[in-house]
Amino acid sequence: MNRSITILGAGLVGSVLSVLLRKKGYEVTIYERRPDLRVSQIGAGRSINLAMSTRGWKALELAGLREEIESIAIPMTGRYLHQDDGSAAFQPYGKNGEAIYSVSRGELNKKLMDLAEANGVKIYFNQICDHVDLQHKQLHLKDEAGNKHTVDYDLLFGADGAFSALRKSMTVLDRTDYQQFYINSGYKELCIPPSANGEFCMEHNALHIWPRHNFMMIGLPNTDKSFTCTLFFPFEGTPSFDSLQTDAEIRAFFEQHFPDAVPMMPTLMEDYKNNPTSSLVTVKVAPWVYQSSACLIGDAAHAIVPFYGQGMNAGFEDCSVLFELLEQHGDNWDAILPAFQQSRKPNADAVAELALNNFIEMRDKVADPKFLERKKIEKDLGIRFAGRFNSVYEMVSFSHTPYAFALNAMAAQDWLLAKIMEQGDYFQNIENATFAAGLEEWVKEYEGKVHA
Amino acid sequence: MNRSITILGAGLVGSVLSVLLRKKGYEVTIYERRPDLRVSQIGAGRSINLAMSTRGWKALELAGLREEIESIAIPMTGRYLHQDDGSAAFQPYGKNGEAIYSVSRGELNKKLMDLAEANGVKIYFNQICDHVDLQHKQLHLKDEAGNKHTVDYDLLFGADGAFSALRKSMTVLDRTDYQQFYINSGYKELCIPPSANGEFCMEHNALHIWPRHNFMMIGLPNTDKSFTCTLFFPFEGTPSFDSLQTDAEIRAFFEQHFPDAVPMMPTLMEDYKNNPTSSLVTVKVAPWVYQSSACLIGDAAHAIVPFYGQGMNAGFEDCSVLFELLEQHGDNWDAILPAFQQSRKPNADAVAELALNNFIEMRDKVADPKFLERKKIEKDLGIRFAGRFNSVYEMVSFSHTPYAFALNAMAAQDWLLAKIMEQGDYFQNIENATFAAGLEEWVKEYEGKVHA
Repeated sequence: MNRSITILGAGLVGSVLSVLLRKKGYEVTIYERRPDLRVSQIGAGRSINLAMSTRGWKALELAGLREEIESIAIPMTGRYLHQDDGSAAFQPYGKNGEAIYSVSRGELNKKLMDLAEANGVKIYFNQICDHVDLQHKQLHLKDEAGNKHTVDYDLLFGADGAFSALRKSMTVLDRTDYQQFYINSGYKELCIPPSANGEFCMEHNALHIWPRHNFMMIGLPNTDKSFTCTLFFPFEGTPSFDSLQTDAEIRAFFEQHFPDAVPMMPTLMEDYKNNPTSSLVTVKVAPWVYQSSACLIGDAAHAIVPFYGQGMNAGFEDCSVLFELLEQHGDNWDAILPAFQQSRKPNADAVAELALNNFIEMRDKVADPKFLERKKIEKDLGIRFAGRFNSVYEMVSFSHTPYAFALNAMAAQDWLLAKIMEQGDYFQNIENATFAAGLEEWVKEYEGKVHA
Repeated sequence: MNRSITILGAGLVGSVLSVLLRKKGYEVTIYERRPDLRVSQIGAGRSINLAMSTRGWKALELAGLREEIESIAIPMTGRYLHQDDGSAAFQPYGKNGEAIYSVSRGELNKKLMDLAEANGVKIYFNQICDHVDLQHKQLHLKDEAGNKHTVDYDLLFGADGAFSALRKSMTVLDRTDYQQFYINSGYKELCIPPSANGEFCMEHNALHIWPRHNFMMIGLPNTDKSFTCTLFFPFEGTPSFDSLQTDAEIRAFFEQHFPDAVPMMPTLMEDYKNNPTSSLVTVKVAPWVYQSSACLIGDAAHAIVPFYGQGMNAGFEDCSVLFELLEQHGDNWDAILPAFQQSRKPNADAVAELALNNFIEMRDKVADPKFLERKKIEKDLGIRFAGRFNSVYEMVSFSHTPYAFALNAMAAQDWLLAKIMEQGDYFQNIENATFAAGLEEWVKEYEGKVHA
């Protein structure tokens, strides 16, 4: 019986996984390619914010870290829309005031590493994995001085992110399917600092969006009362990262499209010119598992675009599902690994599609009055048909409903809402008994489609 | 002006490309990972046969090798079907007796290498490319003794096949899309030797198919009067490579499904057990080109499954198109490489889909009387509407019509033939003036769809 587990990557998923495996009595060792971010400053020091939702909280609760992270998390109960015409609107995410939570990736990772070590996990930093010899169960590592060494493992998890070394060694095996694709937009981080009197410059219990059709900016609150803003913008075309070259062009673009934000962004020009432009990849691979000795998890298995705020949440759900399989199967990894893949792969494919779709929704549809109207109707349906209708957003963000189910429900909800909205004003119609009776039938038909 | 070109791979595409580039006055050097197959026996010595068709012949003609290869090519004018019930049928490929040609891969490659060297191409063998440093334009090579060396290049073509080293170095670059996927069937080579009196055991001007719905066997003639047979068979399930384990199971399977072939296969059991089971991959990548210094071509850019017999033909068409672009743009590689990618990528994607579809057609549909009927109607339409209707098979195999056009035509032909066949017996109906007038309208509609 194998009691020793090796993990590649001490990021969010690797750290949570290590704690959950320790709770089941395994010896756990992590090899991390970066330096220890608790002792050395990494990158430009600007944290990318995460939106923690129900699936993420569950894994933190299993790991015993929920309360500590809640204390540094800022609830965002809806979208605060900054429209093209200068108007603003607020769309609540849930019908009962549910929130997603802005959390600093760096702070969360530090706390998770502390917890892992407190639980007896050994983490080695600056260990670049060149190659995994799957057949001989050996990691080929290189330390910061360039010294190479090998490490034997019994069971290896690759929690080493979108450009995983374990995955690279798996995709050259016969009959391994693999796909990576980039969207035509990239992103750049910008900043809205606290106001002169040290306060948030905007409503802070909201996720701010400036939807501009084929591009957008978003802003998430930080505990230091700043907002981390991200511009999602095409690489090529007009306007695009490519088309904005001079200072004058950059400034004119922001003043035209984000006039309310520019006065709150004193370092806009420096940030725009100094911060990198990053790309957005989706990764799919099958299988995730090699015999009973190696398994991909988190971004390494299913990197997705960030538009549903589900990348970390999906990775944490992987950890929760694996923990439940450990409870069910004991130490029988021959059963656990195939069951893990079978349970997670369809949901990983589904959340990848949901995330790609949500870019269109965020940058484009949310600016449409029809869309705002639809959100109000969805909320009413959720109350009126409690337990029978729940919006896809709520399923994804505020439940443990499998992503594949939510994706399937999306098409059915598009059908139902189109049917309702083509009848005219819903909130007037619903007072009418005939319409209400017809609605009951449509909801039944919707349920049939969803559970098909 | 760059007059020196480096090619990875002395396979079919690399060799033809080298000759065409020499004809334009370039110095050409090829690095090939395998030993020289003209002096050392490679593998089990059994050649995989190719089906040379119109696109392939064109490149050979440009290279000046058409006549020499024609002398070792065996024309196959149609499919010879060995049906489940023991009956046989012959389906001509073209309406005018056109043929595809069975050619030995090994013989063709040897002749192409000879021609390349005779034209002044320098080929280095046993040169494994570990890595291509795209930025510094350097190949990192390893020879058979394990000695590493680097080679500078000005312009590099990766003609190094489905598992291309150049492609591997390109797919780790930011914003490079990549996909590899395997079908659920693999293949195994088998053999029908010449008869006791030294003759072909079956009609030799045909491609033999034993279609058995979710698997099939094919047989192509060789100049030594043997047939190379290939079993395409699922890896898992029943029956499958996985399910046939004992000698008794293997023999019973062949006797049940290929009773007419078994008596012609004296080495069946040894061949089945000794020959490897190989997988079938499709590869897509974008971009194919790195700046003006590196470009993928052939299988390295677009590996496909073999069911349309178009893998080599598509790679040779790449060479012809590149040759035409050289005529058009002179030495302006800044123009040639993007134009090459723009011209070829949509057609490579299309032939990948055509090839996947043709597996279904070969293993399944050709066994259906409806399909045989359809082929006869297509032939009549091709004569009756000469210049307006040409079957997809003929477009792909006997013309230079872009693959993307043929793929588009496939859906339109499915529509047209369904429309015709739901009216009952075509060859009776066509005598009727009203039907003939209606048919004229449908063909017009078909043309609209195809040219949309």
